[in-house]
Amino acid sequence: MMIIMKANATPQQVEAVITRIKADGLNVHLSQGVEATIIGAIGETHSIPLERYESLDGVEVVQRITQPYKLASRQFHPENTILPIDGFTVGGEEIAVIAGPCSVESRSQIIETALAVKEAGASALRGGVFKPRTSPYSFQGLGEEGLELLAEAREKTGLPIVVEIMSQVQIDLMVKYVDVLQVGARNMQNFNLLRAVGETRTAVLLKRGLSATIEELLMSAEYILAGGNQRVMLCERGIRTFETATRNTTDINAIPVLKNLTHLPVILDPSHATGHADYVAAIARAGIAAGADGLIVEVHPDPAHAVSDGKQSLKPEKFAAMVKQIGQIAQIMGRKLAVAQGEYMKQGWA
Amino acid sequence: MMIIMKANATPQQVEAVITRIKADGLNVHLSQGVEATIIGAIGETHSIPLERYESLDGVEVVQRITQPYKLASRQFHPENTILPIDGFTVGGEEIAVIAGPCSVESRSQIIETALAVKEAGASALRGGVFKPRTSPYSFQGLGEEGLELLAEAREKTGLPIVVEIMSQVQIDLMVKYVDVLQVGARNMQNFNLLRAVGETRTAVLLKRGLSATIEELLMSAEYILAGGNQRVMLCERGIRTFETATRNTTDINAIPVLKNLTHLPVILDPSHATGHADYVAAIARAGIAAGADGLIVEVHPDPAHAVSDGKQSLKPEKFAAMVKQIGQIAQIMGRKLAVAQGEYMKQGWA
Amino acid sequence: MMIIMKANATPQQVEAVITRIKADGLNVHLSQGVEATIIGAIGETHSIPLERYESLDGVEVVQRITQPYKLASRQFHPENTILPIDGFTVGGEEIAVIAGPCSVESRSQIIETALAVKEAGASALRGGVFKPRTSPYSFQGLGEEGLELLAEAREKTGLPIVVEIMSQVQIDLMVKYVDVLQVGARNMQNFNLLRAVGETRTAVLLKRGLSATIEELLMSAEYILAGGNQRVMLCERGIRTFETATRNTTDINAIPVLKNLTHLPVILDPSHATGHADYVAAIARAGIAAGADGLIVEVHPDPAHAVSDGKQSLKPEKFAAMVKQIGQIAQIMGRKLAVAQGEYMKQGWA
Amino acid sequence: MMIIMKANATPQQVEAVITRIKADGLNVHLSQGVEATIIGAIGETHSIPLERYESLDGVEVVQRITQPYKLASRQFHPENTILPIDGFTVGGEEIAVIAGPCSVESRSQIIETALAVKEAGASALRGGVFKPRTSPYSFQGLGEEGLELLAEAREKTGLPIVVEIMSQVQIDLMVKYVDVLQVGARNMQNFNLLRAVGETRTAVLLKRGLSATIEELLMSAEYILAGGNQRVMLCERGIRTFETATRNTTDINAIPVLKNLTHLPVILDPSHATGHADYVAAIARAGIAAGADGLIVEVHPDPAHAVSDGKQSLKPEKFAAMVKQIGQIAQIMGRKLAVAQGEYMKQGWA
Repeated sequence: MMIIMKANATPQQVEAVITRIKADGLNVHLSQGVEATIIGAIGETHSIPLERYESLDGVEVVQRITQPYKLASRQFHPENTILPIDGFTVGGEEIAVIAGPCSVESRSQIIETALAVKEAGASALRGGVFKPRTSPYSFQGLGEEGLELLAEAREKTGLPIVVEIMSQVQIDLMVKYVDVLQVGARNMQNFNLLRAVGETRTAVLLKRGLSATIEELLMSAEYILAGGNQRVMLCERGIRTFETATRNTTDINAIPVLKNLTHLPVILDPSHATGHADYVAAIARAGIAAGADGLIVEVHPDPAHAVSDGKQSLKPEKFAAMVKQIGQIAQIMGRKLAVAQGEYMKQGWA
Repeated sequence: MMIIMKANATPQQVEAVITRIKADGLNVHLSQGVEATIIGAIGETHSIPLERYESLDGVEVVQRITQPYKLASRQFHPENTILPIDGFTVGGEEIAVIAGPCSVESRSQIIETALAVKEAGASALRGGVFKPRTSPYSFQGLGEEGLELLAEAREKTGLPIVVEIMSQVQIDLMVKYVDVLQVGARNMQNFNLLRAVGETRTAVLLKRGLSATIEELLMSAEYILAGGNQRVMLCERGIRTFETATRNTTDINAIPVLKNLTHLPVILDPSHATGHADYVAAIARAGIAAGADGLIVEVHPDPAHAVSDGKQSLKPEKFAAMVKQIGQIAQIMGRKLAVAQGEYMKQGWA
Repeated sequence: MMIIMKANATPQQVEAVITRIKADGLNVHLSQGVEATIIGAIGETHSIPLERYESLDGVEVVQRITQPYKLASRQFHPENTILPIDGFTVGGEEIAVIAGPCSVESRSQIIETALAVKEAGASALRGGVFKPRTSPYSFQGLGEEGLELLAEAREKTGLPIVVEIMSQVQIDLMVKYVDVLQVGARNMQNFNLLRAVGETRTAVLLKRGLSATIEELLMSAEYILAGGNQRVMLCERGIRTFETATRNTTDINAIPVLKNLTHLPVILDPSHATGHADYVAAIARAGIAAGADGLIVEVHPDPAHAVSDGKQSLKPEKFAAMVKQIGQIAQIMGRKLAVAQGEYMKQGWA
Repeated sequence: MMIIMKANATPQQVEAVITRIKADGLNVHLSQGVEATIIGAIGETHSIPLERYESLDGVEVVQRITQPYKLASRQFHPENTILPIDGFTVGGEEIAVIAGPCSVESRSQIIETALAVKEAGASALRGGVFKPRTSPYSFQGLGEEGLELLAEAREKTGLPIVVEIMSQVQIDLMVKYVDVLQVGARNMQNFNLLRAVGETRTAVLLKRGLSATIEELLMSAEYILAGGNQRVMLCERGIRTFETATRNTTDINAIPVLKNLTHLPVILDPSHATGHADYVAAIARAGIAAGADGLIVEVHPDPAHAVSDGKQSLKPEKFAAMVKQIGQIAQIMGRKLAVAQGEYMKQGWA
């Protein structure tokens, strides 16, 4: 960390900064130039907030040299994390395609969808049972009943299941059923929840918040990793900008940037990132071409009657066509589609 | 709600929309023009998500006429909600000034600050005991010990206390101590938490999310109101934009817009909205001039040693100067500063 | 255009709206429901600003049904515009790759770059001679001397040249030399310039403004088309958002959205859209996978000594590797790389 | 300027940076620490783009210490610039209120408006004659005829006139008529235009671009100042964000930030910054309370029939009420409303 002092900083102010650095257990490297005095703070700086120094008198600007996260950083972990899920892996050669409805609505709906996405080449099944809805008047999910239906769909198809968790009080219930805990965009900085999933050993799909920076996403991943849970995947799902032609703006740049900054797998959600079924396939292709390790896509047998997110859900036949294209692009990228092995059934999962 | 059909929509598609409207318990008003067919859906539409209709075939666009919130809307509640807090009120003639440190750090820090802000003219005391920190390595708050210190500060000064709640599991603990539950920006769409505070009868200060629209803020208020808790104040605390000269961008427009759309009191937080102590007073004045019902301001006796938010915390003497200016602007606006009466002490609060 | 009246609008206010519609030469379609009165305005509404009606008393909201642009719209021109450039075309089967330095700096620099990008598979050469620089102290370009150097590079390689125009006073000079006039992001709403290039018959590459919506980009294209110049390509080059990890945020969604809304070719500029050479290839691949008709990429033989944009410029060998990948993705998309034919040399261009 | 090298930078890379610094005519201050090597570049660095160093191999990050603008900076010009306009000044004790219609439409319209705003307490008259319109089909302004009408209105009221210039080819015509040249938001980075107005000695009102940072606004001012024209006022007019409840988001923070960074006067445009007549007065009050030196406000005798911006235009009586409140807030701020003296009439202006 470099603390650049104001041109007119007094020796007392410089001294105060140095005292603070030492109190933080760091070493000091002082450099007094004609134009400016610069004070280096050397050591374990990633855990120290910049603001602590920015608020000192005489300080012009504080510049981090090392990143504020460590466990998530590729700097300290150069190799890709390759996450075993269910006979396949995420983060290595294989491309995971997670698909399913926004909400679990009924037995027939989830079983029908699971069979369809399995047939089309999906490697995992998604489905919401606790729904974060902007309006208190909207459908809020089936709860545990939905989890049982998902487990049944898994039994029938061999697909592992990915389900959103909304609160730390749901942890015990969720880990009993699900293969991957999804932390949604609106909860990316629900730090109590992050700590709770960090204490489990269940895989986590952490979605970027609507207006979270890439650095903040990595800081949230750090919360989970710091709890001892190394099974974390990151998910770009579109950010909020001024553009209203689409529901969100896919930050496609985030894919190569994340692959550069972290060793964790990176997934793209083209459904939320566009909000329109018509644009999902194009953005899914773009994501894999940009280097993403997988996709999470909303599929519904009858989007016009979906209780939520119908507008952005693909019909199974469109999803199947998309998976075919994804397979071709994966090949150019030197990769291939993941195939679930139904391992948990043999092992007696849960 | 108006559903505008595509130019080439078929009669079957029009019929499907009409069937859906009826299934939602609404009345249909069909208008077939040369250029377009428009279908009105009349009734209790605020609880129906637009997407349900947007995903139907042949639909061009869906336009809401009434707002998607009802309890928060001024349309159904034209008079200002005037919230009694502690001998003073928020939302009426009085301007509330809530002040205190970002975090409760120690007994001497919080008592000293409480006495100073009381002296300067504050009407309530703020202080965090559970801290939502971007980094897992940052100070996370004193927890219940902090609540006890705040209660002691209240005892000494007569100032009611405003404290952030981060999770529904903290509800029982918090309502025992605090006068106003603050829901922070990062939790504005933590719907489990909103429902939990909606079930209490403690006053709530609901902060706008970093990238939440004004409508989403009102929808979150609706969650609390729908739970039966009518004691809700809204708080503009700056939004995230491309500008980096300040920590956030104060959406000053939100003040008159909210006063127009809702009957709930509107508070401004100039500390988070700017992130710099140097700009807090200017933005505080602007907020009151724009029609805000109060302010929440970070004050610390020694900002350079604050464990959090030191950069944006005012020293007590600067805060006192600011309150003086606020009082003058309040007068021009036909208002006056609120003064706490220490009512809870007489009543045996908690 | 639908004008939805407020619930309490008076008959006089409704009448005033109707009078205004008729004065605009439009037909009226009145629909009076229980909940709301809706007035349709039918005819050539694309040239009428919404605000004209929004400001009338009693109006709740005005909703456009048809788009505010016409010549650019796919609605009125369903087939792709296929633009012949120089023996190849843009907007059809072929993928154009425009490459070259940000600024023309010297004879050797531009000739060397032109030969290198030609060798690597580029179909056109870019190079700036008038530079829009944020700082008045930065290099402002070689002017006409630069145009002569570009013409010489074209002579040597057979690559048509794409050059940014910054002001309508440069028109005569520019059309004498260049094959494609580039209108930069900062000039996307320089309406005098748009009108001036609309009066030429030279091809135009119109870049999206940093914070321009997709609709505004199409309105700016409409200015050029309305002048009679049908040779317009659109270019996504990244938008400004809160994310600072990259120079801009590539709005990859804009590719399929534009292909849906307009018949004009769509080009992606991954250099400005990311601002980092390390991310250019990933985003270039994503663009072609999302359906873009071409790329414009900054290439410099010695980025570290480029007078501008060195950070985002590819070295020729990295560019060559990128073109190879683009060719493979093009094939999956049923397309192929364009190859310049040096036609202008045979025809005596200009 | 501080160049922080990567942890693994080689001595050759450090040497290359030093060579480049010397080639730029700067002095080198080398500081080699355990954790990082930092190279200071000392001298006239404001004219050197950061990217020149960011693109060098081995460089981690480049940090400016001094600002990239100099003439606009308060650092080199601590006292406020106080701009004489017409018997009154901008930037000192007086608050300028510039008011008038978006577009000059007719003789009666502009004369009537001028008399009304003069009567209400305005200190200058605004009116557009060349209009930057998003749509090529919208009204584009009366041109020189409009200038003559404005001059007549000035003659009748003694109010100096503020008119937008859209292209450098309009310079000669404009300086013949107008007292203040307005450079609009869409032209803030039309560098040819900035240079052209920099060569005049007419006062300039420079509006911030829709997505321009505060630093970019100051860099654009620097273009004008570098041309020798010191008579520059800056104008905050709202920025583009995700919020759609208002046309733009007033960046009220920009007022104290600009007053801190620059000596130039700062004006607020509450009309464009909100886009709704209902919110203009609240935001105007906020601007003056935040420390703005003046306002520019759209006023129209009949907003419902305005050819442009009717929705955000105040009727004269509402404007008069607003000016009264502004006068009261000015007083609290130790300031007073400016009054035009019609000086130009005595001096034979133009």
